[in-house]
Order: sequence, then structure tokens, then C-alpha cells
Amino acid sequence: MNRVISLLTDFGVRDEYAGVMKGVILSHCATARIVDLSHAIPPQNTVLAARTLMASYPYFPKASIHLVVVDPGVGTDRSILLVQAADHLFIAPDNGVLTPILASESLQHCFSVELSKYKMVSHTFHGRDLMAPLAGKLAAGMKIEKAGHDIIPGDCVHIDLPTVSVTNDTLIGEVVAIDHFGNIATSISAKDLTRFDDTITIHLAGVDINGLSTTYATTSKGELLALIDSRGYLEIAVNCGDAASALGCSIGEQLTVAGGF
Amino acid sequence: MNRVISLLTDFGVRDEYAGVMKGVILSHCATARIVDLSHAIPPQNTVLAARTLMASYPYFPKASIHLVVVDPGVGTDRSILLVQAADHLFIAPDNGVLTPILASESLQHCFSVELSKYKMVSHTFHGRDLMAPLAGKLAAGMKIEKAGHDIIPGDCVHIDLPTVSVTNDTLIGEVVAIDHFGNIATSISAKDLTRFDDTITIHLAGVDINGLSTTYATTSKGELLALIDSRGYLEIAVNCGDAASALGCSIGEQLTVAGGF
Amino acid sequence: MNRVISLLTDFGVRDEYAGVMKGVILSHCATARIVDLSHAIPPQNTVLAARTLMASYPYFPKASIHLVVVDPGVGTDRSILLVQAADHLFIAPDNGVLTPILASESLQHCFSVELSKYKMVSHTFHGRDLMAPLAGKLAAGMKIEKAGHDIIPGDCVHIDLPTVSVTNDTLIGEVVAIDHFGNIATSISAKDLTRFDDTITIHLAGVDINGLSTTYATTSKGELLALIDSRGYLEIAVNCGDAASALGCSIGEQLTVAGGF
Repeated sequence: MNRVISLLTDFGVRDEYAGVMKGVILSHCATARIVDLSHAIPPQNTVLAARTLMASYPYFPKASIHLVVVDPGVGTDRSILLVQAADHLFIAPDNGVLTPILASESLQHCFSVELSKYKMVSHTFHGRDLMAPLAGKLAAGMKIEKAGHDIIPGDCVHIDLPTVSVTNDTLIGEVVAIDHFGNIATSISAKDLTRFDDTITIHLAGVDINGLSTTYATTSKGELLALIDSRGYLEIAVNCGDAASALGCSIGEQLTVAGGF
Repeated sequence: MNRVISLLTDFGVRDEYAGVMKGVILSHCATARIVDLSHAIPPQNTVLAARTLMASYPYFPKASIHLVVVDPGVGTDRSILLVQAADHLFIAPDNGVLTPILASESLQHCFSVELSKYKMVSHTFHGRDLMAPLAGKLAAGMKIEKAGHDIIPGDCVHIDLPTVSVTNDTLIGEVVAIDHFGNIATSISAKDLTRFDDTITIHLAGVDINGLSTTYATTSKGELLALIDSRGYLEIAVNCGDAASALGCSIGEQLTVAGGF
Repeated sequence: MNRVISLLTDFGVRDEYAGVMKGVILSHCATARIVDLSHAIPPQNTVLAARTLMASYPYFPKASIHLVVVDPGVGTDRSILLVQAADHLFIAPDNGVLTPILASESLQHCFSVELSKYKMVSHTFHGRDLMAPLAGKLAAGMKIEKAGHDIIPGDCVHIDLPTVSVTNDTLIGEVVAIDHFGNIATSISAKDLTRFDDTITIHLAGVDINGLSTTYATTSKGELLALIDSRGYLEIAVNCGDAASALGCSIGEQLTVAGGF
């Protein structure tokens, strides 16, 4: 079958948690192809998990199964969702991590998983005891309709995602993530910027950046620049350097974009 | 064949060591399914490796091959063991990492690997030169009897594992690990606690915790709690927080459990 | 097919970058076997990437495809190379990471990839938009000749790799890497040392080490020693300890080896 299953968690890679989930998946479907998306979501950070999922899943084959285990409510009566959108499957706690999936036009099905079918060995690891077996069974060919019952997407938990607002023709966005290189990801999309011509001024952490670069190496080494990142959002970077450290900038900080230099 | 091979090492993920072992395994068995259990065992810590292995292997398919490369004695005349238990295979240096496997009722076979069949390119990386080729050959169908000669399990190196003692009806255990979330794992099992009724007092790092919670989210955010972890042992945690930092607690520290509040 | 694809990047494991590349590869070739070599190359460090690749690829099956995404020039007009050597394939930016491959006797083909065939979604992530699809297509059976046009290897970018020099029968080398254990890797190979008999004195960071040990455990715990590492190079280590911390030693530092004690 070679069904692809991606894992997105806040487990880190120190403990055996992700490995054990893979063992469970392979126990149910020996031919599953398991891919680590990230295990470095900050603990319980559903907003960053949602963003990472949106940036990733379209690059996977259709019919892939994406498991999101960022689950501060584990062991409570929160539901587990099985969602189909854009011909992909998503399994996650009903805690908002699927907010952008549930809001997308490509949404096809939304199920609440029938939990009574699973043996919960533990109250603290439903990734292992419930979500991994479900993913394995789906990969092995189980029909999604057999996993649970239909629910109304609007009844699921929704979280507030980073936004962009406009005041006096100035875009106001926020820093949503700092990546491994120290590049600063923002909530402002390339589409948001189409309201401006090529001359824009970005203001962040007390510094002005004029215009967009095409890529890192079009500036000198160590120079601050702005560009559109690989997810389609405005990014502030330093060529061969660490922009977040250089600016002393952290997640949640506000930035503005205005027309003109 | 889709035989599953798990890797448990103290290699970290910075260097190419684990990747090279995978290359060797796939050279011997192109269809092997390789799963990283953890590469973050503290260097040379056979006790934590043994615990991680016990918490993980039962979740893998029967006939999986578990490779443990925590090997401070690499290049000396220590043996390499090939052990079959509970229909799983284990390959590890004879340094005690398999102590709980060798002591288990499900032990089936214990071999000392015939080392002369392997070309030791290096005296410092038998994971690559010996254990990975052996795992690959076994995954490709080699009979375990061909790997070496039978030895008496009691003649293998055994290590002291974290224990629990009882004094005046008080359990005395120890902190055995801190996980990625800062949850504090202890040596006291759920079974050890059956001697008490629902009222217990846990004493650790100068703090008393009364009773067991079912899961994290049954307490308020930031609150200290005790529960049974996913491995079946007593865990001290903070809901959506880092218990080890909060308590200033580290591995080896003693804790006690007594009946009553 | 079970074609093996290895990934060597400076992405880290925090972000979804490596996972997304795997999604793309599996979209093109559902049966590819993807192995992480390392994602911890220091950002933009082509020298360490070249060394890691040379230490790793010979342990993979013939016909493996090795993807090196250490790419500070992403989005500029630098070429992407597809190189065949020793019956392995290598895909990398033309920035010197393939210097030792291009210089090897086993070099078979050197192509510049025809970039116009790929849809560049982003100017900052050609690993995802170009190198992963190319690797996936090759794994699925595409002929290498179809990927681009022949170029002269000598016309590719070459980088200076760590060297060894000889002055008055003293070898002068340098520290090239510190591994996860704190072992100090050097540029001096076992072959370089054949000019000496068994009595040598290594001088590094103000300390003298006499002679070579066979392996770590032939010395006492905590003792400084020198040996030949698993790559075939001189390594300075501490048995069950961290040599780099003990010596306060860092990459680039000079060391010497002379005959006699």
C-alpha cells in the first residue's frame, strides 16, 4: 500500500514517544511510510502546530494521513477528530489544531472518533493508544466512515490564529515563528502585500527594512532583508545570519508594513 | 519482508552515526523498516537505555529487531548478544542494557554473536561494522542460530536497575528520568501502589502531593500533580508546565509514598 | 524499487523543512526509502557537509541518491549538480559540498540540472521545489541523462578542505569537528601516520598525548587518549568523557604529531 503517515507532535526527540507510535502504526500496517514532520512544536502550542501542518500537508501524496499529537487535554473527555480535506486525512484532538483545515474550502468529512473501540492503556498517551492504531488501521484500508460519527465542523474547537489588520493603509501583523536559522516568520502573506507597489517599508523591533529581496544571497552577508518565505509569507532574515538574535525579536511581536520608502 | 528494526543509541542526532547504520542495514535488507526509538540516551547510560527499551518494544510487531548501541566498551573483548524474548529479537553489547529482557519470563534464546564473521573497519563503531550488518542479515531471513553460540543468560553482565523498597509501610523509590516536558518519572510502579487505598501522600524535593490524578488536565494549569504515566509508573508532573524545573529535581533523587493524606 | 535516498542538510529538526522534502519525494516515488544522514550541519557550513557525506555514502547501497541541501546561495543563479560516482548519485548545489566527490577516481558523470523543468514555488527552498522532485523522479526510474547537461567537473565550485602539512617531519593538522560525545575529529588520517612508528606525540591545546590507543576502554575512565576514529582519522577523546570540553578545544584549532615520546 505504501500509505504515507506524517507525525507532528510536541514530544521532542529525547524520549521514546514518537518511536513507540511508529511501532504501533507498523503493527497495524506493515507497509506504512512514516515521516516525521516535526516533534519540536513547543509543548501544548496548538497555534504553531496548526501553522506547521498547513505549510506541510499539501506537499504530501493524496490520501496521506497526518497525525497531530499536541494534546494538553489528553485523558479528558475532549474528542479525537478524523477529518478529510483535499483528499488528505487528519487525525488530531479536538483542541483547535485543525482550525485552518476545518475552515478550508477543500473540507470533505469531519468525524468524531468512536473512542470505545480502543483499549486505553494510559490516560496520558492517546497518541499511542488511540491515534496511532487508528492511523494504522486507515493505512491498512479501513474505511473512514467506520472510525466514528459525522459531526458539524462548526461545533469543533476553534483557536485564534495570528492575523493581519489594516489601519490607514498600514498592515499590522505579528511574528509567528522563529526558524532554525533565526529567520523571522510573520503573519503577513504575499497576497496581503499585493496592495502595495514595489516600494514598501517594514518596521519591526525598532528597525526599518525597505523593499523585498528575492532571496537571501541578493544582499551582502550579515545584511538584514525581507522576502517571501517558502510558505508564502513575509519573512525577515539576515543573509547567512540569525535575524531573530540580531533584532532581539520574539514570537508575538508586532510588525507593520506601509507603502513607500 | 517489511521487517521492523528499531534503533536505540546514545549517538545524538548531530553526527552521521545513526544514518550510516541505516545505510548498512538497507544494504543487507532493502525492505527493512527502520524506526528511531531514541538517540538521546545520555552517553554510556545503560540504565536509561534498558528502561527505554522495556517501555518501547512491546508496542512493536512480533519479530521486530531492536538494536541497542550504548557501548562504552566498544572495541574491547566484551561480547555482543543476540537475544530472543517475547518473539522479538534484541542485539546489544553484553554490558547490562538487556538486564530486564534476560530476566523476563518470555526469554527464549540467548546467543553470543560470532564476531569473527564481521569485518571490523573500526575499533570504535561496532554499531556500524557488526550490529547493523547482523540486524540486516536477520531482517533478510538469516536464522538466529547461525549468528553465534548459545550462552547461559545468567553469565551475561547484569546492571542494577532503579528499585523500590518498603520501610514501615512507606515506599521509597527514586527519580529515574526527566522527559521532554519536564515530567518526573519514578521507579515506583502502579502495582507497587496497590498496597495503598486512594489516599496517599507523595514526598519529593521537600514537597507533598496528595492523591493520584487521572490525567494532567484534571488539575488547574501550573498545578503540581501525581499520576500513573504511559509506562505504568508513578509520575510527578505540572499541568502544562515543567515539574522537574519547578521542583529543582534531578535523576537519582529519592521520593517516598505513604498511605493517608 | 526500494531506492534509498539520504538527506544531509543544515535545516535542524525544529521546522517542517526536512519532512516536507520527504513528502515531495514520496509523491514522486512511493517506494523510496528515505534516511536522515544529518540535519545538524552548522548553517551554510559546506566543509562539514562535504566531510559528513564522504564518511557516510560508502555505507549505503549502490544506486542510493544522496541529497545535500546546504545552500546559502539558494535562489541565485548557482547551478544544481547531479553527480554519479562509485555508482551512487549525488544532488547538491554547485557550492563546493561535492568537492571531494568530484575529485575522486570513482567519478562517473557530472550534470548541471536543467532548472527550467521545475516549478519554483519559492526562491528560498529549492530543496523542496527542485532537489526533492529530482531525487523522487530518479528513484522512480528517470535516466540521469534526462536531468540536465554534461559539464566539466573542474568547472564546478571547489572549496578548500581541512589539510595536513609536514614541516621537519612533524605533521600539522587541524580540528575539523567535535562530535556528540565531545570527541575531537582531526584532519590527520591513519595513512598520514604511517610515516611514524608506534611512538608518536600529539600536541593539541597545550597538552601532549603519547601513542595511539586501540579503543576508548583501553584507558581509565576520564583519561585523555588518541585513536583512529570510525572514519579513519586521528581522534582525540576522553574515555567516557568529553574531550573538547576538557581541552577547551574548538574547530579550526591546530594540532601537531611528531615521532617519539
